[in-house]
Amino acid sequence: MSTQVLSVPGVRIASVAAGIRYRDRDDLVLIELPDAATAAATFTRNAFCAAPVIVAREHLAKGAPRYLLINAGNANAGTGERGLADARATCEAVAGLAGCDADQILPFSTGVIGEYLPVERITARLGQALSSLREDAWEDAARAIMTTDTVPKTALRRFEIDGRTATVVGIAKGAGMIRPNMATMLAFLATDAAVEAVALRQCLQSAVDASFNCISIDGDTSTNDACVLCASGLLGNSPIEPSMAGETASLQEAVDAICADLATAIVRDGEGATKLVSVEVNAAASAGEARAVADAIAHSPLVKTALFASDPNWGRILAAVGRAGIDHLDIDRVRIWLDDSLIVSGGGRDHEYQEAEGRRVMAKDSFAIRVALGRGNAQARVLTCDLSCDYVRINAEYRT
Amino acid sequence: MSTQVLSVPGVRIASVAAGIRYRDRDDLVLIELPDAATAAATFTRNAFCAAPVIVAREHLAKGAPRYLLINAGNANAGTGERGLADARATCEAVAGLAGCDADQILPFSTGVIGEYLPVERITARLGQALSSLREDAWEDAARAIMTTDTVPKTALRRFEIDGRTATVVGIAKGAGMIRPNMATMLAFLATDAAVEAVALRQCLQSAVDASFNCISIDGDTSTNDACVLCASGLLGNSPIEPSMAGETASLQEAVDAICADLATAIVRDGEGATKLVSVEVNAAASAGEARAVADAIAHSPLVKTALFASDPNWGRILAAVGRAGIDHLDIDRVRIWLDDSLIVSGGGRDHEYQEAEGRRVMAKDSFAIRVALGRGNAQARVLTCDLSCDYVRINAEYRT
Repeated sequence: MSTQVLSVPGVRIASVAAGIRYRDRDDLVLIELPDAATAAATFTRNAFCAAPVIVAREHLAKGAPRYLLINAGNANAGTGERGLADARATCEAVAGLAGCDADQILPFSTGVIGEYLPVERITARLGQALSSLREDAWEDAARAIMTTDTVPKTALRRFEIDGRTATVVGIAKGAGMIRPNMATMLAFLATDAAVEAVALRQCLQSAVDASFNCISIDGDTSTNDACVLCASGLLGNSPIEPSMAGETASLQEAVDAICADLATAIVRDGEGATKLVSVEVNAAASAGEARAVADAIAHSPLVKTALFASDPNWGRILAAVGRAGIDHLDIDRVRIWLDDSLIVSGGGRDHEYQEAEGRRVMAKDSFAIRVALGRGNAQARVLTCDLSCDYVRINAEYRT
Repeated sequence: MSTQVLSVPGVRIASVAAGIRYRDRDDLVLIELPDAATAAATFTRNAFCAAPVIVAREHLAKGAPRYLLINAGNANAGTGERGLADARATCEAVAGLAGCDADQILPFSTGVIGEYLPVERITARLGQALSSLREDAWEDAARAIMTTDTVPKTALRRFEIDGRTATVVGIAKGAGMIRPNMATMLAFLATDAAVEAVALRQCLQSAVDASFNCISIDGDTSTNDACVLCASGLLGNSPIEPSMAGETASLQEAVDAICADLATAIVRDGEGATKLVSVEVNAAASAGEARAVADAIAHSPLVKTALFASDPNWGRILAAVGRAGIDHLDIDRVRIWLDDSLIVSGGGRDHEYQEAEGRRVMAKDSFAIRVALGRGNAQARVLTCDLSCDYVRINAEYRT
């Protein structure tokens, strides 16, 4: 994804090393938006949301953000009143140096929960960050926001509008504590197209629901998730509004694609993950029950360890379907495939199924578990990964 | 637990090696009940329940069971019509040799899902089993029903009734795929007291709800769970009926204690488990929300890997509380303890808390995570264990 330089006219970025938790690497990112920019965001639904989430939500509601300040290594979560004061202090420091209001700064943090933010180490680097802002620095920023991620995650799309070519760039981090409803996941997207605020919000929510809210690594939900979409307007098009069907569709397609790319990259980089698995449930009576079945499979440690072992242990998939809480499920109508190989029908192993075929699919580093419930036309899809020894090792050692 | 010989007058047991999956060990158990015995059972709520569960439930409804036939190594689940026929065939074989009706046999299976039961290997050993029935063979049976268990699980209690001493013995297996609503768990309890069928059923359900339905190893629910309580009546007391308050209380206390012992032993022997952790939630607005919070903590892979690492990473516990779906949770009122050490208050780390104290508790092989929600008087408790590298290894290798 890094074969072309990522750049969005009007959006400048800097990454610096503030020594928040890591040594010898950047861990603080500043993103600058032009005066007329619009921004939209979605946040974690965890009741224990972190201090920066509370502050960013509050500042965004007031209108015109000019800077996004992002740190890795410390989540500033579970830090009570002092955490809120710390998040506000970093905003005030940016505002003081940049000459804008503190509520024009959106703060984001990711990392260890429950330790106070080292505010002075952050503010000490803001001058350096402000003086090194550049439009082509997305790749460095994608690295600077990493925690247990092993690779930076970036995506780029272009679309045509008013006879001009608009750009959308996105970066994301997040490799554990990932599940629907956002996770320890931060994603920042920007376009140079001009987009009116309501259209931007609708576009982002729709894209997030179909991407980041449909992935699961370990079923946990973080206190700090946020996904932000900014529009600099530098392209000079007539601002996209909800009523402009063609333009909103073009924007949506590009943002959907970026979110899908980044969500897939997050699952592929799941802590200890060796496989990317698409769990697809169809012929359900409702979207809700399709999703319940997909989640039961995607969250099952027994299914996920079987994925790790490349073991076509369809009994574990079947047991997960059976415990998803679907009323009056007729097991004789349930069918399960690995990619296109039918493995379960009539309440048990399909008569044609050969285990060698299951092993062939399972040996791939990316495949689908498909389930047809035989109850209706609704469907759902969740991206997940396997559960490996390394997942345990990474999470048992992360703080020490 | 094996310092005294386990024996229930009137209940005879045999364990034999049928070579179902394992070599050089017993894997088939036959339990014989006298003619006037009563029996009660609870079964898995997984929609994909195994063939023996269907047959055992059907036979139990008809009345007077005389034999329980239990095999380890093959679950006879996901085996469709043939699985049902196989389960029935084993019952008919026992009935033919023992001279009773096939619906007086209750079949139970545990092991790999999706392979056909080796009926002939089982029936070939029934004669040997029938000729070696003995009252003092519970310990051998506890070993013969093991799958990934590392130790046999047995319990014994006595209680007084009608001036006589009644005995209750229980055995159980199950070390993975354990979660509330029964798991890959089989438990067999027997008493020599005479107990009327309705009283026996109520006693068992109450004991199971407070024990086996409050444990979680990996959040999965098996297709094969069953817990059976038999009463031989050989003690000669007046049969206990629901109206006999004192007698039902004595029986309940003994059965509760056996189920609690066995449930604890199952969690302690959880696949790869190194720690036994009691998750206790109180001051909740309802029992349901207390249980939701306890489950969120007990099922969180991030909490469970921190337990494995003896890392007092209270942020992960707090994040699990926050994602439990409790409406309008006031995080400032939530308090969290490790045993009696207060670690979280006011939305973050308690001011008095020292990490050394958290490490001291976490280093123990058994301790409690206690959460007060500050919303009411309801409570819930779930027993769980840590998530270790060995859990993944065991479940990645189990079939191969």
